[in-house]
Order: sequence, then C-alpha cells, then structure tokens
Amino acid sequence: MNKRTDLAVEAREFITDHISGITSEDTQVGSVKVSTITVSGQEAAKRLQKPVGEYITITVDNFAACVTAADDAVEAVCAALKKLIKRKGLTLVVGLGNHNITPDALGPQVIEGILATRHIQGAAAAAAGLDTLAPVAAISPGVLGQTGMETSEIIRALVDSVHPAQVIVIDALAAQSPQRLGRTVQISNTGISPGSGVLNRRKELSEATLGAPVISMGVPTVVDSSTLAYSVLEQAGSKPQLDEAFQNPMMVTPRDIDTLISRSAKVIALAINSALQPEISREDLIYLTV
Amino acid sequence: MNKRTDLAVEAREFITDHISGITSEDTQVGSVKVSTITVSGQEAAKRLQKPVGEYITITVDNFAACVTAADDAVEAVCAALKKLIKRKGLTLVVGLGNHNITPDALGPQVIEGILATRHIQGAAAAAAGLDTLAPVAAISPGVLGQTGMETSEIIRALVDSVHPAQVIVIDALAAQSPQRLGRTVQISNTGISPGSGVLNRRKELSEATLGAPVISMGVPTVVDSSTLAYSVLEQAGSKPQLDEAFQNPMMVTPRDIDTLISRSAKVIALAINSALQPEISREDLIYLTV
Amino acid sequence: MNKRTDLAVEAREFITDHISGITSEDTQVGSVKVSTITVSGQEAAKRLQKPVGEYITITVDNFAACVTAADDAVEAVCAALKKLIKRKGLTLVVGLGNHNITPDALGPQVIEGILATRHIQGAAAAAAGLDTLAPVAAISPGVLGQTGMETSEIIRALVDSVHPAQVIVIDALAAQSPQRLGRTVQISNTGISPGSGVLNRRKELSEATLGAPVISMGVPTVVDSSTLAYSVLEQAGSKPQLDEAFQNPMMVTPRDIDTLISRSAKVIALAINSALQPEISREDLIYLTV
Amino acid sequence: MNKRTDLAVEAREFITDHISGITSEDTQVGSVKVSTITVSGQEAAKRLQKPVGEYITITVDNFAACVTAADDAVEAVCAALKKLIKRKGLTLVVGLGNHNITPDALGPQVIEGILATRHIQGAAAAAAGLDTLAPVAAISPGVLGQTGMETSEIIRALVDSVHPAQVIVIDALAAQSPQRLGRTVQISNTGISPGSGVLNRRKELSEATLGAPVISMGVPTVVDSSTLAYSVLEQAGSKPQLDEAFQNPMMVTPRDIDTLISRSAKVIALAINSALQPEISREDLIYLTV
Repeated sequence: MNKRTDLAVEAREFITDHISGITSEDTQVGSVKVSTITVSGQEAAKRLQKPVGEYITITVDNFAACVTAADDAVEAVCAALKKLIKRKGLTLVVGLGNHNITPDALGPQVIEGILATRHIQGAAAAAAGLDTLAPVAAISPGVLGQTGMETSEIIRALVDSVHPAQVIVIDALAAQSPQRLGRTVQISNTGISPGSGVLNRRKELSEATLGAPVISMGVPTVVDSSTLAYSVLEQAGSKPQLDEAFQNPMMVTPRDIDTLISRSAKVIALAINSALQPEISREDLIYLTV
Repeated sequence: MNKRTDLAVEAREFITDHISGITSEDTQVGSVKVSTITVSGQEAAKRLQKPVGEYITITVDNFAACVTAADDAVEAVCAALKKLIKRKGLTLVVGLGNHNITPDALGPQVIEGILATRHIQGAAAAAAGLDTLAPVAAISPGVLGQTGMETSEIIRALVDSVHPAQVIVIDALAAQSPQRLGRTVQISNTGISPGSGVLNRRKELSEATLGAPVISMGVPTVVDSSTLAYSVLEQAGSKPQLDEAFQNPMMVTPRDIDTLISRSAKVIALAINSALQPEISREDLIYLTV
Repeated sequence: MNKRTDLAVEAREFITDHISGITSEDTQVGSVKVSTITVSGQEAAKRLQKPVGEYITITVDNFAACVTAADDAVEAVCAALKKLIKRKGLTLVVGLGNHNITPDALGPQVIEGILATRHIQGAAAAAAGLDTLAPVAAISPGVLGQTGMETSEIIRALVDSVHPAQVIVIDALAAQSPQRLGRTVQISNTGISPGSGVLNRRKELSEATLGAPVISMGVPTVVDSSTLAYSVLEQAGSKPQLDEAFQNPMMVTPRDIDTLISRSAKVIALAINSALQPEISREDLIYLTV
Repeated sequence: MNKRTDLAVEAREFITDHISGITSEDTQVGSVKVSTITVSGQEAAKRLQKPVGEYITITVDNFAACVTAADDAVEAVCAALKKLIKRKGLTLVVGLGNHNITPDALGPQVIEGILATRHIQGAAAAAAGLDTLAPVAAISPGVLGQTGMETSEIIRALVDSVHPAQVIVIDALAAQSPQRLGRTVQISNTGISPGSGVLNRRKELSEATLGAPVISMGVPTVVDSSTLAYSVLEQAGSKPQLDEAFQNPMMVTPRDIDTLISRSAKVIALAINSALQPEISREDLIYLTV
C-alpha cells in the first residue's frame, strides 16, 4: 500500500467518493474530539480495507505537551471502552510490542500500569473489601524474535487456559499523517488486523482467531518512511514512484517519542483500570499501580 | 522449616545418619567442583524433602569476582545439561522471577540471553544455513502480582500450545549457607518444587503437572532471614526460637547482588545456548544474543 | 558498630540514660506520625553518633500497602522539607544509589520523578507562564564501581559549576529494626554521614564538604545481616559474638522491596516537587513528571 | 541545512568541486572499510562545515546482521582510537544521549560496558595485579530535559574536577543516507559539533570548551525526516521545497534499531576498553564488564 495507516479515520479520508455502509459521527467532549466510524457490510469493509465494526477515535491536542487534556482524554477513552465492553467476567489485557524499541513500547508500558486482580481471592481479600473487584489478568507476550512464538499463539493459549469474557489488546500504530502521531487514540471492536502495528507485522487477533471478543486500543507513533516519501512526492505534484530503498521502510517518529509513549501509556492504563473497576477512584487506581 | 534450602547438597548435609537411596559423587573439572546427588525411592525423597531424581551441583569460586572460572563454569553447566536433556525437538526455556527485585531477577536475565530459533524457518533461513538450528522458544512469564496468572498456568498453556520435547526452567534459589550464594548452580531433572525460590512461593512445575520433562536450573541468591536467625542461634548454643517477626521472613542477600545476578545469568544463558546449539561456537552465540 | 542504623530515632532509642542536648517532639498528622529530634552541641552529637542538627522522621503504616497514607505522607514530607529549606534560588536534587540493586535504587527512582526546570528560560517559557518556576536541577551520579568517581567528587564539581542555593540528597538507608523498613522517611539538615546508606559506604556530603547547605532524605530499606544477628542473640539472652562471616555483612530486605521502593520514591518525588513548586498543583506535578 | 549529516564522509560527498585542504585515504581491513579524511585549514573546514582535524570512518556490512564483521570492526575501531589517543593518564569516557529514546541510546549503552578503573587503588589492587590498569572514569550525564543542566556544563565541571588527559565522547549521529545507518562508526579528534546528534541539539564539546583533548565516536542511527524528504524530491527531479511540517523534523530510523544500538554499543565499548587496557585480553574485558 502506498500510504499505510492503521487508523480508520485516515482510511476514511483516502476515499473521496461516497460509500454506503460507512457512517461517521463527531462530538466534542471537553478538550478532546471523539469521532465514531461504523463500518457495516463486507463491501464497505473492502473499500476501507478495515473489518466490519466500530472505530472510536479520540483526538487530543498533544499527549506530550498538554496538561489539561489528560483528564478529558482519560474520560473519553474510558467512556469508549465502556461502550465496547459487552460482557461481565474476566478481562485479559494484552500489551503488544517490543519494549526495547521506543515507538513500539506502548503495549508493554500500558501493561505495567494495569491493575491485575484475578489472583486476589479468599478470606484476606474479602476482609480487605477487595473481593468485589472485577477480575483482570494482564500480560506483555514479548516479540517473535525474542520468544520464538507468535504473540497470536501465546494469546490464544492463554485464552484457552483462563477463558476471559473479553480481551483488550493495546498496540502502537502507524499513521499516514505526522500530525496524528501522539494525538490520537483509536479504540475498536474489530481486533488487530494482519500487517498492522509499528513494524507492519501483526497477525490477526480477533474473535474468530481467539475465541473471545477483542477490543483493540492504539496510539499512532510512527509514519512509514515509504508513506512519508509518497506523501511528499504527491504534494509536490510529482509522480510518486519509490525506489527499492523503500521496499523495507523505516520508522518516522517524533523527537519527543519517549514522553509521548509514557504519557499515552499512563492515560490508556488509567482509562482501562477505570473502565474495569468503576468502584475504585482514579486517585486510588494511580496509587495501586505505582 | 527452620532452615529452608532449595539446594539438594545442603538438604543432604542436614541429614547426619545414613539413608539408603541417596548416592553422592564429586569430581573436579578445572576450577569448578561438580557433585551429583541421585535420589531413588520415595523414602529417601521424603527424608531429603526433595523429589526422586538427579541433582547436579556446580560450585565455583565466586561468579561475581572470578574471571577464570567463567569458562569452566559454562563448560560444566553445559555438560550437566547435555546429560539431563534426553529428547530431540523443541525446547521451551522459561525464566521465572520478578525482574524488579534484583535477587529474583535471574530467570528474566537468562531469558534475555537465550537464542530463540523456533521462528527461523523457510527459504531465507535455509539460504543462510540457519535451518539446522535446534528449535528453541523462550519466555519470562512475569509474576502473579503483575499478571494475575500463576506462572504454572501460563507455562502449562504454552506447553499445550507449542508441544515442546522438554522445558528448561531457570529460577533464583534460597540456600541455608551464605557461602553458597553466587557460587553454586544446581541443575536437576526433578522440576520446580512447591514453595521453592527466593520468595518461597513457587507452585510445582514437573512432568506430572506440565506434560513434558522439566529440567530446572538455579543459583542461590538469598538466605531467608528466619534461616539466618536460626543458624545464628544454633551456632551460639542457644535454643532456636524465633518470634513472630520471622513468620514472614525477609531476604538476606550479598551486597554485590547485581554483579552476581548478571554474571551467573550470562554463564547460564551461554551454557543453555551451547547445549542446545552444539553447531554454533561460543563466540558466535555471544554475538547473536547481544 | 554492633547495631548499625542511619536513623536518628533508632540511635536515640539505643541510649538509655539522659543526655542533655537532645530534644524530641512527636506529633500526629492525619495517619502519619511526625517526630522531630534536635541535636545541639558536640557532646550530644558524639553520644548519638549523629551530627548536630535537626532530624524529622515521618512514620507511616506501610508505603507498600497503605493507600490512604500516601497523601498524608506527601503532606508531612513536604511540610518537613519546607521547614528545612532556608534559601531561595537554584536547588540541586541528587539521587544516590545503584539503580541495579533494588534496595539501593531509591535515589535514582526519585530523580526520575523530579521536575527539572533550570533550563526552562526565555521567551517561550515566559509565554507559557513557566518563567515563575523555581529553578531546579536533578541528577543521579551513579556509583563508584560504574563511574570510577566518588559521588562526593561529582556532586562537589556540579555545585562548583551551577552554584545551587541548597542541595537535596536522597538515599536508601539502613535501620536496626525490620519494622521500620518501608515505613519511615528521615529528613535532616545534617547531610549524609560517612559510612551511611545501604552499602555502608557513603562519603560525607555536608555544607562543609560541598559549600552549600545539604538537606538529606532517606527511607530505610535494609537491615545489615550483622545487626540482625546481633539483635537475635541479644533477644535470646545470648552473648552477641559474631564470627567472621559477618565481617562483610549482607543486606536483609523485605520481599516486597520493589513495591516499597517505587511507592516511597513516588511519595518523596511528589513531596520535593510540591515543596519547590508551591504554585503548581499536585495533579499537574504528577502529569508533568510522567 | 537541507541535507543534515554528522558524517564527514557524507559532507565530503556533497562537495562536487575540488577543495584544497581535504585529503581522503581508503583502506580495507578484513571485512571492514577504513577511510580517513583530514581537514586542514579554516577554508576547507568552512566548505565542509566540519572543524579542522582527522575523521576516521569505519564501514561494516551491518552491525545488526553480520556476525563475522564484529571482530574486524572492534579491531578497526580500536586501531583508530589508538591512533588518536595521544596522552597517557586518566581518560574520561562520556556517553551522550537519552536512554529512553532507542536511536539516541548509544552513548548510555556504551558507558554500561566501559571498565571504570580510576577507583581501583591501594594495597588490594596491587595484590590483585590491578594497579597497572590505565585509569578510566565513565559517565552518562543524561539529558537537559531530565537534569536541567547542559551536558557540556556537566562534562566541563567533571573535567575541572578529575583532570583527565583526554575525553572520549560517544554519541548517536544523523546521516543523510539510510544506507549508512548501523553500518558506520565515525571517530574524530575534532570533538562534538554544535547542532550535531540525533536530536540536532548538541552544544560544542572540544579542547577549546573543555580544556582537554576530545575524541568523539559515533554511529549514525537516524536520518532527519526533512533530509529524507529533500533527497526524495531531489531524486524525483522535483524542486525541493519543504512545507512547515518539516520545520521540526522527525527521526527516520530502521526497524531493527534495538539490535543495531545494542550491537554497535558492544563493539564500541569493547574497542574502547581494548584501546585503553592493552594488557587485558578481549575475553577478560568482556567478562569484567558483564
């Protein structure tokens, strides 16, 4: 693809003509913009190159720089999650990505902030009033090069073992526009698409492949260098032809990528904890996951 | 237990009378001492409080300080592994422990140095001559408090999914004698015993519970504070009675624990890689796992 | 010393007879206890083996377990700091310790949460209203074995270069009683004493050696194994004689040391940021230092 | 600058006409290419936009992929260092860069592998035969946003305190050509230029500003997105005009940046240790710095 993006809002912008089966709805919630794209029917899915389902995109000013948007962002992401989480019971939270590559470290950093509760049982828990917590398990399965196992294999094995009611998967994404990096959270009930993610390598993770509903959450942290080059030539009115140097594209990422990753990870982790444990206050959740 | 130890050699020393069913054999290999304890029959296992099987203990001068012993140690650990690895096929290497607690970080640090190969397949691998590598998968399953899942559950799920011929499990251990810390590697075919490990919490990991043979490897990095107190009183001729402060013992660990952990992790990882990939030289293994 | 402690409150308890020149005062502030010991005159300093000055000790239930105490602890530590910070101008915050040894990692972890502002200047800062921030610099100088330079050398060099009005130094401490570990913050205007700290190795850091007032802050995270052994024998009515194994003592530390370190680091960092930047709310400080 | 590069070899290629004052010399050493550019006189320095001095560039196939080149690379880098190190006495090794941003983490990762020896003195050292080691100190001064202090201030303060005979500075670099990333080491006696480095922000570090000779070492890990866009338009025959989106360029970096960084860090650290401690074998140096 010439202009690779994992964002439904961008895929929607690429299509200039009208498609039935795609509806959009935008609202403003405090300082953040919330847009919901619903894709119905295989034909619309094929045009958009995104599976049938719902895509909620939350856009903030800038995760790395804007203090006041943080609360609004947590609120909006939490609300989107609550909208998509349909079942009661165990939630398995999975953070995809390589913690040694900064733009790909979103998943692992979110998992560090997730409140795992599945193991908190028995008399001690009841005495401390912790037996009313919703059960949550959390894991970062690492990367194929380190484990020798596809993350989809590992997650499938865990789903078959602990039988979650749903799986929440967090991954860093690729976007077409540099303006979206660090400013967008995409939440969807369509799972993880093949070829998505910072390194363009994900295998499919969906209800079909895992046997449990999958809610995916991502923040775009890179633009593929081939996508950037294509856009640059397009804007210059040139014929976009890329030489073989762009066959194996590189990652284009903002200079403040570390702050961007750590702040979006904090927002997403807090939103997930809040959505799963509505009985616990934000302050207590922050303290418990320090 | 008054004097907790995960080491068979120490458990053997606690027993002053003769037991049939326990044989010991010591040899010197370069600068390291290799002692093999074989436990046969349930009665001997009960006296020793260690399962039936073979325990190979490699003792070096001091992992943290002794340069020349490193090669001898790798050699001896590798030889012990080759003795206990019975099957061809996929090996799953598992590093138990909490990477955020230095004396418990041995498993995760070893896994960082393991050469995972299970995913290296296909034409590209054949062209690069890498298709003759023995298949290896590797993972650090984290800790219950972080994941909400027992490591035994996670490992069982992975074994059911990838069907390894054997599982190698690495864990930091507790010893009774401070002199053994950082100087001993215990390799055994009896798996991981319940209650073993630095935090005294492991669930059983064995062929019975996992469905595949288990080879366990460990280095003692702590003495329980209750065991230390007991020994101190015993040596002073006092009646060893410990107050409730020792009900939840603390960890007693050497000051150079960071160097001790990183050096033993390097030795163990290199020994495992060498045992599993005899075709690759030590230098190449070191380079490939940087 | 038979029972090593870096805590003035413990050193005070060791002295059974009356000493003039030492005054104590205890108050309760919410869920935390605040005790202030003032040492006046060289004779009292010699008896206590602690320099002349003021020692404020904040005791909480348990940093690792108690949610509600966190706010009270931040409040009390912040108040203690404000009491001891006498000058306006640049503050240099220094985190001593080895980040690779969990019980010694308090200093480096605190520094990760300090809001450095000294570099925020110029028109951009004024436009964003950030030019009213108190100037703060922060650093973890590492450890002698890694740098080849004494932390006292490094800090002296920086003080001579940036001319701070005062230096705040954070270090993990040794205590005599296991009950104090993870439950106490000691803040003092007497600097860092020679031989203090987890590894018993600190060189002196004081106004005399640095040329700027020093406020030290610490949380006890270990008991020396020799101190533990001594206490155990003492309690058993035995004559406390320790063999040479205790010449180079080991560290005795709680099993939940990782949570203890990360939570006390968060409390201390937030208290320092609050004390230095009273104009910024706690929530904003937390967001800015993510 | 339209096409930003920290590499003298690339700056040389940009100039198509003849300049007196710049000489080049290329040799092959095993599997690596060594090219030496000497810049004499201010006019040549101005044309090249690089200070007067010597630039040795070592090119390997690919740090991330090529096993056999590692030894040749260590050899060549070590030889280049020995050529440029003129004085006996203390060497201060400084690793610039932000360890939280993968492409900028080269400096800190190298420092982790440097054998610091300045503190190894006295009877114990003499007894262990370690008193013949060349004195070495090493530090990662962090980044301005974390410390509030310019790295140039920190290094100057340390130089004034410990009086090194020379300073070796390691930094990740920006290149113009993606083919050079992860394949080149540049070693020079001209110090660090203002505006160099991955984030385009370095202040000058030279004998003039520090008071001691500076040997700089770097590996290019990024291409500026503005430089990439410029090259793409140039190659397409388009007029290279970049919009404001490229005013604050992003980093373009290879997908295997983590392996690239860790392997080049290991090569550089080993080369530095070998050049400074010729009496110690490579194997011993590797063991001592684990």
